[in-house]
Amino acid sequence: MDLRRALAEVVGERHAFDDPELAAGYETDWTGRWTGRSRAVVRPADAGEVARVVRVCAEAGAAIVPQGGNTGLVGASVPRGGEVLLSLRRLERVGAFDPALGQVTVGAGATLAALQAAVSDAGLDFGARDSCTVGGLVACDAGGARALRHGTARARVAGLEAVLADGTVVARLSGLVKDNAGYDLPGLLVGSEGTLGIVTAVRWRAVPRLARRVAALVPVESPEAAAELLGVLRAHVSSLEACDFLTDDCLSLALAHQRRPAPVARRAPLYLLAECAADHDPLEELAAALGEREASVADDTASREGLWRLREGVAEAIAALGVPVKLDVGVPLAELGAFLRAVGEVCGDARPYLFGHLGDGNVHVNLLGDAPDEDGVLELVLSLGGTISAEHGVGVAKAAWLERARGAAEVAAMRAVKAALDPQGILNPGAVLPAPITAKLANGPRPA
Amino acid sequence: MDLRRALAEVVGERHAFDDPELAAGYETDWTGRWTGRSRAVVRPADAGEVARVVRVCAEAGAAIVPQGGNTGLVGASVPRGGEVLLSLRRLERVGAFDPALGQVTVGAGATLAALQAAVSDAGLDFGARDSCTVGGLVACDAGGARALRHGTARARVAGLEAVLADGTVVARLSGLVKDNAGYDLPGLLVGSEGTLGIVTAVRWRAVPRLARRVAALVPVESPEAAAELLGVLRAHVSSLEACDFLTDDCLSLALAHQRRPAPVARRAPLYLLAECAADHDPLEELAAALGEREASVADDTASREGLWRLREGVAEAIAALGVPVKLDVGVPLAELGAFLRAVGEVCGDARPYLFGHLGDGNVHVNLLGDAPDEDGVLELVLSLGGTISAEHGVGVAKAAWLERARGAAEVAAMRAVKAALDPQGILNPGAVLPAPITAKLANGPRPA
Repeated sequence: MDLRRALAEVVGERHAFDDPELAAGYETDWTGRWTGRSRAVVRPADAGEVARVVRVCAEAGAAIVPQGGNTGLVGASVPRGGEVLLSLRRLERVGAFDPALGQVTVGAGATLAALQAAVSDAGLDFGARDSCTVGGLVACDAGGARALRHGTARARVAGLEAVLADGTVVARLSGLVKDNAGYDLPGLLVGSEGTLGIVTAVRWRAVPRLARRVAALVPVESPEAAAELLGVLRAHVSSLEACDFLTDDCLSLALAHQRRPAPVARRAPLYLLAECAADHDPLEELAAALGEREASVADDTASREGLWRLREGVAEAIAALGVPVKLDVGVPLAELGAFLRAVGEVCGDARPYLFGHLGDGNVHVNLLGDAPDEDGVLELVLSLGGTISAEHGVGVAKAAWLERARGAAEVAAMRAVKAALDPQGILNPGAVLPAPITAKLANGPRPA
Repeated sequence: MDLRRALAEVVGERHAFDDPELAAGYETDWTGRWTGRSRAVVRPADAGEVARVVRVCAEAGAAIVPQGGNTGLVGASVPRGGEVLLSLRRLERVGAFDPALGQVTVGAGATLAALQAAVSDAGLDFGARDSCTVGGLVACDAGGARALRHGTARARVAGLEAVLADGTVVARLSGLVKDNAGYDLPGLLVGSEGTLGIVTAVRWRAVPRLARRVAALVPVESPEAAAELLGVLRAHVSSLEACDFLTDDCLSLALAHQRRPAPVARRAPLYLLAECAADHDPLEELAAALGEREASVADDTASREGLWRLREGVAEAIAALGVPVKLDVGVPLAELGAFLRAVGEVCGDARPYLFGHLGDGNVHVNLLGDAPDEDGVLELVLSLGGTISAEHGVGVAKAAWLERARGAAEVAAMRAVKAALDPQGILNPGAVLPAPITAKLANGPRPA
């Protein structure tokens, strides 16, 4: 029996197909940068079907690429050539929100928008595309601006359910925030980009809802001054939730694109965008911490959203000028100045536009120009003790960099863990760890 | 060359010994329940020495038991018979607190008290013995009462440094809160109780300092009413930081032991002890959420600490009556009622005293009497979907229960990870995973 037919016996004819036109919708990511042909597309309905699909593939030695909302940026969710594309979108069940625990269980295929709706009585703390799926954001340990206060996805996961490479299902969904009986397999799966197991459901911890919000855009003269201000905010503004930054270049682009006047009179090389959230109005404590500094303080929703639109509109303003190369890196705060000063020298024949999340060192580098040198930027990041991936993941895009980034000892340990949990190497080969072992796998072209 | 001498070449004669009198101080835990003879005690000064010690042991096939403050409760930090006892207490360096990041790097041997002093300008969120070490609390993923708001140790670790079983050092200490380049090895080591690697340093994230605190002791008629009240508090009191519970039996014991009058007029089967912390006085929002409920509300430091002394004094009051068997378990909140009603039936010829952390399901069971049936309690916990260990760890005490608790699939995955990272099985054999492979190891008696 051929593989597609074996898969169809698990999920039904409608949900296992190799028709090129039907498959095409799963084979290219939303940026258009990553694309590849699948051997078949399979759309299981629940964890039990995912497990059976994995067993069928394992028996056939067929590699699997798991896919959620396909909004990733590092090529981890589209085929590299001949893998089975396993879409989790049908696992979209959203459970009831438990107010006593502040938790809800959602299927891996549920969108962030659906999760948001489910916890609307509490708070959510995530910035990502509404159409991204919970499984995907957990698989790449997404972060966003509010990770400063709430941590990344890993910190919000109270448990999960996953299918391992041998088709067994492991589940920790009872909502026990304290459960240290044995190794933290859920935590290991978070951020492993579908290479150690396929996340099928997530137990999500909401954060308290904080209705009173204030934001401020503050011009600062240097990254060092920015770090100092962040220290002041941390010490004196307990309601601090986010502290993003953007360069003057980025602000100018966004202002021009949105045809708006600058919200601050004084222009500076950098701007911080801080947001505080509390039950009580945090305006007073924020204003006290800012002291004599010039700042555009927004304490109503419209003007606060206006400030965020500037920061978040930078990407769109850049896109209006051309197709940028986007790099998601992290630089230790103490080295941010060195990074900002040197990046223009190493990024080839391109202009760098830089913004990011100051509190966690996450810099989003956008290179616009004819001959951007991604490698030059990554080299600089590593020379400063930074990370080649902060929140987008390694995927296929940066797999070749992993060993230089993490060192031989760590990558050897990662390879050992991968081999332990997926000895055939069928789960998302080529993502995260380089040198895929697809050669051993029975990937195949789609039947003509 | 014998092993002790080889170790002494790494750490110096003073810090590698097998004299029974000197060794004795490391061979019994503080409860006196767990004890065993070591082959030698070795006290390295830094991560480099730890790595060399591990290489010497690996070459000799000698098993290692890592030890921090030795305040654990599950026998994970004392020898089982003939292992090398590796004390981390000399790794007590405490770095400077970084105000911009809200982080500090501390050696594994630094005490919680030292960590607390280092972050005194920010907040710490941990309840554990002052003499416990940071490495130990990370190795068992300690939690405490404030995990409701801040998560367990894992959520507070921004990175760590560890020595793996092959003597390589892996380090992530640059403080990047967002760093998803590859698998989360630090997170995997947290809670692995020294069986996958030896933590040598920790990058700790402080929480914001919140100066205004209010606590309330609230009588409730049932676990179901307690859960309902917790839901109300979560929805309306964003400053909620802890929500412990104790039974009337426990309250009575503590009151008698401390010779204090009851702080509430009405006695009930259960009491919640909630604490809120904020910049602004949280009294009003707590009072509004409690509504007409009878409660003892403490909004000054002395009376607040008085309420906590009742809750925290329960253990001492029990100890005054005899030596209890202590079990640290977790029960899903929805099953807490079933657990409390049934535990007296299954705990043998003993009386159960119960208190714990309502928000995370963590129940501390103390059995007082001649023939306590630990197994009966653990069986009940598992039948209700709970966990055999919430925050104390599995250690040696509960290793035999792990497979029943986690299921064959998860334990098979854990064994695979253990074999991948420690193929010789030299790191803390017998802890967490049962059936130690010490048979293969060259453990030996101490020379006479």
